[in-house]
Amino acid sequence: MDLPDSATIVEMLPRDGFQRYPEFIPTGEKVALIDALSQTGVDEIEFTSFTHPKAVPSLRDAGEVAERIERHEDVCYRALVPNTIGMERALEADVDKVNALVVISDAYREKNQGMSLEENLAEIDAIVDLAAGTDVEVEAGLGTSFFCPYEGEIPQERTLEVVSRVLEAGVDEVTLATTMGMADPRQVIAMLTEVFDRHPDADVGLHLHDTNGMSLANTLAAMHAGVDRFDASVCGLGGGTILPGGLGDVGNTPTEDLVNMLSDMGIETAVDFDRLLEVAGDVAEDLELGTPSHALMGGTRAQVLETADGETND
Amino acid sequence: MDLPDSATIVEMLPRDGFQRYPEFIPTGEKVALIDALSQTGVDEIEFTSFTHPKAVPSLRDAGEVAERIERHEDVCYRALVPNTIGMERALEADVDKVNALVVISDAYREKNQGMSLEENLAEIDAIVDLAAGTDVEVEAGLGTSFFCPYEGEIPQERTLEVVSRVLEAGVDEVTLATTMGMADPRQVIAMLTEVFDRHPDADVGLHLHDTNGMSLANTLAAMHAGVDRFDASVCGLGGGTILPGGLGDVGNTPTEDLVNMLSDMGIETAVDFDRLLEVAGDVAEDLELGTPSHALMGGTRAQVLETADGETND
Repeated sequence: MDLPDSATIVEMLPRDGFQRYPEFIPTGEKVALIDALSQTGVDEIEFTSFTHPKAVPSLRDAGEVAERIERHEDVCYRALVPNTIGMERALEADVDKVNALVVISDAYREKNQGMSLEENLAEIDAIVDLAAGTDVEVEAGLGTSFFCPYEGEIPQERTLEVVSRVLEAGVDEVTLATTMGMADPRQVIAMLTEVFDRHPDADVGLHLHDTNGMSLANTLAAMHAGVDRFDASVCGLGGGTILPGGLGDVGNTPTEDLVNMLSDMGIETAVDFDRLLEVAGDVAEDLELGTPSHALMGGTRAQVLETADGETND
Repeated sequence: MDLPDSATIVEMLPRDGFQRYPEFIPTGEKVALIDALSQTGVDEIEFTSFTHPKAVPSLRDAGEVAERIERHEDVCYRALVPNTIGMERALEADVDKVNALVVISDAYREKNQGMSLEENLAEIDAIVDLAAGTDVEVEAGLGTSFFCPYEGEIPQERTLEVVSRVLEAGVDEVTLATTMGMADPRQVIAMLTEVFDRHPDADVGLHLHDTNGMSLANTLAAMHAGVDRFDASVCGLGGGTILPGGLGDVGNTPTEDLVNMLSDMGIETAVDFDRLLEVAGDVAEDLELGTPSHALMGGTRAQVLETADGETND
């Protein structure tokens, strides 16, 4: 199996985890968490979203968060922007990178953003234009790249077409997102292999939700296809802004489980695992999440050996 | 990636799931569950263990269970046997196959079975001798093939040596078990590739616990290496008989999540998924397990589409 030597980790908790969180998390708490995440060694943090405050009220303090966080020199601070208005706010807030959203599924995009595909792609063009002459990088995040809760499986060619369109528009990188967490490893390999066949030099990442429990298997499949950049969220918190009723469990891959797997496999990341696990433990405690990841349940080699060393039930 | 066209599913719940279950499950309930599992299309059921009643009191009714279950002609009824005494009881109980246990780790084997490796292998020889001239097949199940809670990572060569020894002893098939659920995909590929290099015609399966959350990723890795037979347990229930204190969460891959992944990937199994999910739902309800698998949380494509069709929160 082809595997990379190292991988880039993008922490999504402050944006994807908090956008649907039922209570408003005070700005100071967000800032403290982002500052703690900045010390874990993750390469990039999607720290907020410059979305209309009525659409995502939980992140209405995006500008203030951007102002108050302490920027670590090794961390790329990225924000989601759904349109040019968001992009203008992001530029004012001095972000390093924006995640400009394109949704592949027409049904999901119309519910979520009220735009046609062409309108969505025109926003990408305008966002790339706004970034020109600044240091700000543009990533296109492609929602529902594999499966839509309304349309079902997304035909590969539709996603590939949008990948080509955003690369032609001049984005710096592309990230395919599962959104509903319903991709399977065979689909991931087929899609990513074709993306790299058509765009061998493109910077392509993956954003995996874990509704079907396959996100680590999909990570392995994607690495085999050539991907070495992964979004993930501490404690697995994450989910779309508008989802079919009752479907609450669309969390991301827990960052601590992802890094644990890569570490066991000998794939290098810049993350200090113990520090990351500490932050995850604090988040789980503060938000009363129980044990939302395998790593927090004690499922790492170091923890198993330590437990066995200290106590046995024989 | 190399993937098989079809896979064999071995259901472990009645043995691996119940051996450490805190209460004795009445024989009638066990029989009803095994009969329900027999209707799901799983290829094989490890339905009990012929272990000393004091060592595993929860399965002390092995003989009575064997007598009362309704044998489905397409299902192979397998029982675990730790030694020749267990084998003699299994033969009397008219099983189709036995899972003869060999533990690789010295520390774990001594705590679990009180035998040296050579004593353990001598039991395998004797079990194979007892099976000779009967229709009963012998599988060697190799515990702690990858990682031991006391010894840490198991050097590949030690497991490979035992694989060779049990094949020389004349077992019909070999199953590598993670036991602690601490294997990673790279280790799985390396080990299984080497097993098939040395024994290209061997029937080799995998028994995965999921403590680290990597069991579906390990399944994918194993399929790439050539494995197409997997043990799994409805609702993920499972765990060793003697484990370091506090390490309760060493469940198996939930059968419903495994079959869901294989089905999404187009890998054929004989399982009727809807019927399996129904049994899993009943088990979760009867044992008050909550939602112990992604499939039971609604994480299948069919369930997502049905939810989206009936109700949206926009």
